[in-house]
Amino acid sequence: MNTSIIRYILGHIIKLEGFFMLLPCVIALIFQEKELFSYLFMASLCILVGTLLTFKKAKNTVFYLKEGCIATVLSWTMLSFFGALPFVLTGEIPHFTDAMFETMSGFTTTGASILTDIEALSHTSLFWRSFTHWIGGMGVLVFLLAVVPLSGGSNMNLMRAESPGPSVGKLVPKMRYTARILYIIYFALTIVQIICLLFAKMPWFDALCISIGTAGTGGFGILNSSIASYSVTAQWIISIFMILFSINFNAYYLIVFGEIKKAFKMEEVRAFLLIVLVAIALITWDVHNMFGSLFEAVTHSTFQVASIISSTGFATTDFDLWPGFSKTILVVLMFIGACAGSTGGGIKVSRFVIIGKSIVKELLSYIHPKSVKQITMDEKEVEPSVIRSVSVYMITFMAIFVISILIIAFEENDLVTNFTAVATTMNNIGPGLSMVGPTQNFAHFTNLSKWVFIFDMLAGRLELFPLLIMFHPTIWHDLIIKPIRNKRLSKR
Amino acid sequence: MNTSIIRYILGHIIKLEGFFMLLPCVIALIFQEKELFSYLFMASLCILVGTLLTFKKAKNTVFYLKEGCIATVLSWTMLSFFGALPFVLTGEIPHFTDAMFETMSGFTTTGASILTDIEALSHTSLFWRSFTHWIGGMGVLVFLLAVVPLSGGSNMNLMRAESPGPSVGKLVPKMRYTARILYIIYFALTIVQIICLLFAKMPWFDALCISIGTAGTGGFGILNSSIASYSVTAQWIISIFMILFSINFNAYYLIVFGEIKKAFKMEEVRAFLLIVLVAIALITWDVHNMFGSLFEAVTHSTFQVASIISSTGFATTDFDLWPGFSKTILVVLMFIGACAGSTGGGIKVSRFVIIGKSIVKELLSYIHPKSVKQITMDEKEVEPSVIRSVSVYMITFMAIFVISILIIAFEENDLVTNFTAVATTMNNIGPGLSMVGPTQNFAHFTNLSKWVFIFDMLAGRLELFPLLIMFHPTIWHDLIIKPIRNKRLSKR
Repeated sequence: MNTSIIRYILGHIIKLEGFFMLLPCVIALIFQEKELFSYLFMASLCILVGTLLTFKKAKNTVFYLKEGCIATVLSWTMLSFFGALPFVLTGEIPHFTDAMFETMSGFTTTGASILTDIEALSHTSLFWRSFTHWIGGMGVLVFLLAVVPLSGGSNMNLMRAESPGPSVGKLVPKMRYTARILYIIYFALTIVQIICLLFAKMPWFDALCISIGTAGTGGFGILNSSIASYSVTAQWIISIFMILFSINFNAYYLIVFGEIKKAFKMEEVRAFLLIVLVAIALITWDVHNMFGSLFEAVTHSTFQVASIISSTGFATTDFDLWPGFSKTILVVLMFIGACAGSTGGGIKVSRFVIIGKSIVKELLSYIHPKSVKQITMDEKEVEPSVIRSVSVYMITFMAIFVISILIIAFEENDLVTNFTAVATTMNNIGPGLSMVGPTQNFAHFTNLSKWVFIFDMLAGRLELFPLLIMFHPTIWHDLIIKPIRNKRLSKR
Repeated sequence: MNTSIIRYILGHIIKLEGFFMLLPCVIALIFQEKELFSYLFMASLCILVGTLLTFKKAKNTVFYLKEGCIATVLSWTMLSFFGALPFVLTGEIPHFTDAMFETMSGFTTTGASILTDIEALSHTSLFWRSFTHWIGGMGVLVFLLAVVPLSGGSNMNLMRAESPGPSVGKLVPKMRYTARILYIIYFALTIVQIICLLFAKMPWFDALCISIGTAGTGGFGILNSSIASYSVTAQWIISIFMILFSINFNAYYLIVFGEIKKAFKMEEVRAFLLIVLVAIALITWDVHNMFGSLFEAVTHSTFQVASIISSTGFATTDFDLWPGFSKTILVVLMFIGACAGSTGGGIKVSRFVIIGKSIVKELLSYIHPKSVKQITMDEKEVEPSVIRSVSVYMITFMAIFVISILIIAFEENDLVTNFTAVATTMNNIGPGLSMVGPTQNFAHFTNLSKWVFIFDMLAGRLELFPLLIMFHPTIWHDLIIKPIRNKRLSKR
């Protein structure tokens, strides 16, 4: 295994995080908050550690999927570890497990919180909390690809390990340019949302934090009431942008280059929008007599549907009080999730489209046993290996889901709490139902459960397998024992 | 499509049910109950209808999987329809939907009941109720295969449509003899259980009904307290037989023919027994302070685990009052289910073994992308088409599961009730949690929900696809419109 490239990537990531931490320092200067020093200290520490790790260049820049996965898992773990320390240093989240939960929830764009009073936080920390969403949304390794010149062909393996969806689409032949294009679209959309919210008369700090939280489909708010106290116009703007950020970014690429028809023909995007519309219609019909007017009902149901399916997790109303039918729909949407190639979480619509087609194919094989029909998507044939790995993905998802619920079940909370807490963390959403409903938080769980959630959030964001291979003993053997042995051998 | 063979098989099945209905008549004579006349009338009616349908032999005895599936679905629907009528005639279950629910629950070996007072039923009806379990357990078409000479090679398609598990194992080259061997083992084990229960001083009628209910892994009791009021010895006997009936019958075949080692080497059986032992240990540990002694705790946890994983559904205690951890384990066991080729329900252990191996294979492909490893089971290679259809099966299962929950959710029961009610019917178990817990029943649901459960029970028992293909429009076209058109054409 090429451990030197893993060290090199890891160093770059930590250095990058140090530079990212300078942004909350700017916020601290604006609001003249004493948290400045903690963030400045951590930024320097990260830049120092990162520089030390990247000082010696990697001997060999070729790496395979295995190294890509390990680099991704270690990067995300380190990001959360260093990202959590400012909260501990400022004393705003004194316990490390809580801070780690909060930061992992940030980077994985989950948005589940252990804070009971969000408004007690300093502006600096509120910004950093929301900014982790923005960093995690598009993927930090993708960012690295866009700015740091790594080796040529094998970047694909880094992107494949971090990017959501059953298969990675290259927009342009060079991975590096693909990464850049993605980040430009991401950045531009975020700016547009900030401007829209400012027009809706939202204070600039709120507009900034909410927009970067929406862009990453994260869900950390800066008020205890999440989005409920903002104007209806602002709520509609956020609804629309939550949906925009959960659409496959390839669609925007196509639109930018004039191929609008092709963008609207993408099967996944169509299926996604159809699900959104049907869900809004059903929920509006179910909850309409809970609100003063039909418009109000549509506003709330649109917001909640957009928030859950995009895996953002903002809330304008306590949907835990909604009737069972609407709640069931929301739970189903949690699992469906956004489009592949977006910043959203969940199992992803394209996986469901592929699986739906496989089910139809299986059914037809009962009627016409000898017909062989290929499964296609966007008029391209879907490779059997992709179909197989989609099925395996879904079932692995269920397996981790069940094991997590079993561990959480030790706490003797009600089954709905356990079920939706795991669902909301694995799908990177934020709120669940019952004791983890939109007006609740994750503070009451034991440390054991919190670590399970931390694992689930990371597993969900990195799409299971990169994290799961870390359980294979050969990985640790190659990562730790082999280098030590080699060093000893070379010393002789 | 060969509609004449479908008619012919259907006729035989209805005739067979008529003969089966003579058995409750015997019970009626013994207990001198007036229900005799209703059952005698229905038996005559079934034999008459069956004879009319089989009067004209099928022109063409060759049929394919499609015809096998259709014959199976129609047979099971007709069985339940005619089987439900005695309950309506005797007035013991006056509403047809309720009677249909109860009978479908019987034939599919679910054991969920709409009765609020079981003990109010006549002995005749109690016996018929339990006897439907026995008929449905091993499969009624398998029985037909064993007794009625049908065509040669294509019987496999009938068996494949009705038998549980990812692939049908022929015990001997001739399907007919395989069917006979299965029924002989089934019958012998039932007799042994009756004798054991008689030795444990259970009254003969109870021993008979409980044994045929255990054999089919059904779960209808004849007392309101299910099994709780019987002696501890009787409870242990039932526990053991529930497990015996959920082991792949191939194992018994091997044991009978002296290949005991081979039987104990079957991977599915090993995995099944391991799951049972781990579940018993965990639950005993979790509930031990709820009972007077460790032995009592072991007795109850063994019984409940055996009852749920075998999909029988008897209960000796109200496990809805157990702590959340134990309840979660029981819910997981509901989905795992018994071995393929047994009378038990659920998704089946072999499917989980195959899927587990696929997940490991997928993981290894991240570490060694170029290694191609075949998945094997019992030292035989598992065909890729089997692996694919197992994954598709599981995901289709989840899809029907979710749609069912969404329809049930209209009733505004709590989410645990909805979830476990669908889980327990689709997996053919019987009791769930909360409002469908072991001391509750399904009487309170609306007719719409009851029909959803009826569908789910049949879908679970026939393993989804035979039932799902009925939704394909060409099937109904071939079944109804084509024959009518052909008749008109031939009249011209």
